[in-house]
Amino acid sequence: MFRDKTCGELRLADAGRSVRLAGWVQRVRKMGGMTFLDLRDRYGITQVVFNQEVNPEVCGIANSLGREYVVEISGKVEERTSKNPALPTGDIEIIASDVKILNKSEIPPFTIEDNTDGGDDLRMKYRYLDLRRPCVRKNLELRHKMAFEIRRYLDSKGFLEIETPILVKSTPEGARDFVVPSRMNPGEFYALPQSPQLFKQLLMVSGYDRYFQIAKCFRDEDLRADRQPEFTQIDCEMSFVEQEDVIEMFEGLVKHIFKYTKDIEFADPFPRMTWADAMRLYGSDKPDIRFGMQFVELTDLAQGKGFSVADDAQIVVGICAPGCASYTRKQIDQLTDFVKRPQVGAKGMIWVKFEEDGSVKSSVGKFYTEEQLKEWGERADAKPGDLLLVLTGETMKTRKQLCELRLEMGNRLGLRDKNVFAPLWVVDFPLFEWDEETQRYYAMHHPFTSPNPEDIPMLRTDTGNVRATAYDIIVNGTELGGGSIRIHDAALQDEMFELLGFTPERAHEQFGFLMDAFKYGAPPHGGLALGFDRFVSILAGLDTIRDVIAFPKNNSGRDVMNESPSPIDDAQLDELRLRLVPADGEEKK
Amino acid sequence: MFRDKTCGELRLADAGRSVRLAGWVQRVRKMGGMTFLDLRDRYGITQVVFNQEVNPEVCGIANSLGREYVVEISGKVEERTSKNPALPTGDIEIIASDVKILNKSEIPPFTIEDNTDGGDDLRMKYRYLDLRRPCVRKNLELRHKMAFEIRRYLDSKGFLEIETPILVKSTPEGARDFVVPSRMNPGEFYALPQSPQLFKQLLMVSGYDRYFQIAKCFRDEDLRADRQPEFTQIDCEMSFVEQEDVIEMFEGLVKHIFKYTKDIEFADPFPRMTWADAMRLYGSDKPDIRFGMQFVELTDLAQGKGFSVADDAQIVVGICAPGCASYTRKQIDQLTDFVKRPQVGAKGMIWVKFEEDGSVKSSVGKFYTEEQLKEWGERADAKPGDLLLVLTGETMKTRKQLCELRLEMGNRLGLRDKNVFAPLWVVDFPLFEWDEETQRYYAMHHPFTSPNPEDIPMLRTDTGNVRATAYDIIVNGTELGGGSIRIHDAALQDEMFELLGFTPERAHEQFGFLMDAFKYGAPPHGGLALGFDRFVSILAGLDTIRDVIAFPKNNSGRDVMNESPSPIDDAQLDELRLRLVPADGEEKK
Repeated sequence: MFRDKTCGELRLADAGRSVRLAGWVQRVRKMGGMTFLDLRDRYGITQVVFNQEVNPEVCGIANSLGREYVVEISGKVEERTSKNPALPTGDIEIIASDVKILNKSEIPPFTIEDNTDGGDDLRMKYRYLDLRRPCVRKNLELRHKMAFEIRRYLDSKGFLEIETPILVKSTPEGARDFVVPSRMNPGEFYALPQSPQLFKQLLMVSGYDRYFQIAKCFRDEDLRADRQPEFTQIDCEMSFVEQEDVIEMFEGLVKHIFKYTKDIEFADPFPRMTWADAMRLYGSDKPDIRFGMQFVELTDLAQGKGFSVADDAQIVVGICAPGCASYTRKQIDQLTDFVKRPQVGAKGMIWVKFEEDGSVKSSVGKFYTEEQLKEWGERADAKPGDLLLVLTGETMKTRKQLCELRLEMGNRLGLRDKNVFAPLWVVDFPLFEWDEETQRYYAMHHPFTSPNPEDIPMLRTDTGNVRATAYDIIVNGTELGGGSIRIHDAALQDEMFELLGFTPERAHEQFGFLMDAFKYGAPPHGGLALGFDRFVSILAGLDTIRDVIAFPKNNSGRDVMNESPSPIDDAQLDELRLRLVPADGEEKK
Repeated sequence: MFRDKTCGELRLADAGRSVRLAGWVQRVRKMGGMTFLDLRDRYGITQVVFNQEVNPEVCGIANSLGREYVVEISGKVEERTSKNPALPTGDIEIIASDVKILNKSEIPPFTIEDNTDGGDDLRMKYRYLDLRRPCVRKNLELRHKMAFEIRRYLDSKGFLEIETPILVKSTPEGARDFVVPSRMNPGEFYALPQSPQLFKQLLMVSGYDRYFQIAKCFRDEDLRADRQPEFTQIDCEMSFVEQEDVIEMFEGLVKHIFKYTKDIEFADPFPRMTWADAMRLYGSDKPDIRFGMQFVELTDLAQGKGFSVADDAQIVVGICAPGCASYTRKQIDQLTDFVKRPQVGAKGMIWVKFEEDGSVKSSVGKFYTEEQLKEWGERADAKPGDLLLVLTGETMKTRKQLCELRLEMGNRLGLRDKNVFAPLWVVDFPLFEWDEETQRYYAMHHPFTSPNPEDIPMLRTDTGNVRATAYDIIVNGTELGGGSIRIHDAALQDEMFELLGFTPERAHEQFGFLMDAFKYGAPPHGGLALGFDRFVSILAGLDTIRDVIAFPKNNSGRDVMNESPSPIDDAQLDELRLRLVPADGEEKK
């Protein structure tokens, strides 16, 4: 061992002790006849002192050290005269008797500090140096701790972690599957799993009534800002349960994680909201309930007064921004610009100011009397000083636009504190989603999701309104995960496939082995999956999952550190019996 | 919830209690007016009783149940009149008041019992039913428990579990890499990792001084009896350590696992043996030391007596089989046939019987006097009644043949008890392995393995005898895992690459990003990896890793349950800009 203590553990009580430390040179300062070295490792920073007079040779080596050199230091712990309260080790320093250079370092391309001078691309190229920065390290430490606590909780509840394969069956329509050619079975391919869904349902058939896995999943799709081609999922399934049992178990998990990693206790059950309410009150199936500003529908009040924008709309809906009546013309214009951005897509924004003096000002003053606008205010529970912001149009689109505006107002008013956590269950999702383009229904979750038993009679008569036994867990407006009770009845599953437009052949081709398994005694079962990367990033207070992944890929699915993906040898292609087709469609020799 | 108790937990103390159970019908027996149902779930089997007279309707349903039906039972716990001591629940039974069929089952293709009537292929095709058998379930339960305890131990030692990517860089010469075409980067491929080796060394450069991961690894190679294309590795790395530190840490891990999963405590340190001794005494770098029968070299005694088989041999070496002088001609012939099998490859076998009466009988009695053979016996420490078995030939080959014979004798003499565990460290491996075919040295472990510091001066002068700072851990003759101290010095690494015949270009192409990283302050580091599947199978007392994997593949890399790998759509190939080349070399339209 090159050390007997770490750079994070020495305290005043250790004064007088002889120690050996090893780590990286954070910085070296010469002050008069003394040289001060900040030595860094995973556990912290310890100050080391070299005295030119007492030990000129050793001090000379210290003076030669560059940033990020790896050194081993021997010395004695002493109380510091000028303590550094910002450091846990700030009460002591090491009076060095020896220093050994274990490895040199070139000058790193950016500073190894939380506030680094390195840009994003540079840090990704040198990710191994970026990972030295304490703020990045803390994310990975949190990730480890969370994974450990997840396992501790689930193990204590009798769950078994069972590894399912990474090389799985490629399914037709698996456009988003990564595929893996098999050398031993030329012309055939494995796929990488988008989730262990089929396997976990098989495990239920096999009687493993409480399964979980922290599982790698894969999607070969265009990466939006915050997606990765490989990601990690906390995948869970239980047998002999109903929705309430699943929700209770995993609410317990989320509470456990908050308690043991953030020291936050949630005394009460997490609130629940139906999907219909979430859409109606927040215009989103993942509402951020850290703040209010629920939607207020004004359609009946706004229509029939000769204002065609309202009259032609399916919905007139607003939010009341507290204390914002004082907004200037410029601020209001910014908000109007915000909702008119193509990403939001509104045509315009109506505003009504309820002034402190009781008067009302509005962008639609020509169309409505002050009395009428006061009615709007009453319905919105607007207080003097509040600002009502109203959008109009087609119901679902307008709600989504207003959702964006609400979140923007939340940001502006500082109501979205990263240290406040507001979990929420959204329940009673629709089972089906209508697709205009293909003019058919799709499963909103997946084709194994069970309908709400009450709604089974409506499956064919009122398909669009059938509720699923499906639930999502939301934290701070981000979907942490979700799941459903699955169909375990073969006849009902057949009906679902039919409604979803699967021919029996295609259903069998795609899910055959699961459907075969279901013939041999499938128990009632259900489960859920949580996005682990997302879970860590929420608790770390980060906006992107990339920062909680040790070696992430960029938006093109590339690892810029090791330059993958990359071309492979022709010999290897030959072995796989594959040939590349260049972009112009000509064969490559 | 469809139950309030499991089928494994009710005891006499629960008598009188009303309960609800759910599970699978193991069997139904009608006896007079009573029907007995064995209800099975993951936790055990509970007997349920239906009374035709008391509750004819419910009893009628019970009589209609087939094997593997899924049912929910309500009833009252009662003490049994005829108890079943073989079952933990054998003191009680449930007097059923109601039974609900949750799902039917077709007749399963084999019996769901430890002693099943299903053959291997059938069980793999219906793996989801095979997994219901208690003996298979116990393996997966053990696997879960071991994974959990591994994490608990390593977490307590300050290790961080850090996920490394599954989509990694494809390297030239990566013939055994699975590759994954990238749709977003056409013509380019990821590879699936054979191990996280490069990433864990990068993490050491990044300062994560104690890393581990229970990691999926992949190899696209012809599968020997006990290989899988994807397997799981306990992958570990530490910084600022020497060999002794690594061995101590992971000996601690192995002891922890034995203690908490098998209740076996190893009081003493595991024995250690140099690679040279292991080869000399056992003819193997993974000796099974559950039993003795160490090799005895007889070359000097056997040569020069006119027996050309001995005279022409590089080595004459034997083992002393205790108490086997009584072996019949037929038994001896069986052993001779054994060593002459092509898998072993010896030309013949010499035997010497040291009879109880002090006389000596031998297959080479014409060439050696009884006195001379008694000298052999003395060296082998043969007692009256022992049998000396001797092979001759080229040193390494003969040792390997004798190793097979020794293991065979161990089996015959019942010395390889699966409930006895004999761990062993093998150390001081050679750094290089000479390949006759290509006439060059290869790294025995991998090119980052550090030479023993004492042997660095011999790198160019006595290359073949340079020892590595590498170590394997062996249990019962099976390699559980191994590792090494890595080279952290760039100059030494360059020398290694040169000795291994890498041009600087090729070294850079293959390991460039690691070598770049090493320029920025690489700490001394080392680690090890344990085969997790193997570890579980050893503790489960199984001969193959397949039985400890939930969904294994067969020897052709196929999952016969879901029929993967499988062909993919032309449209998907087009998107990947790939074309299949049929076996005859013609393009496929």
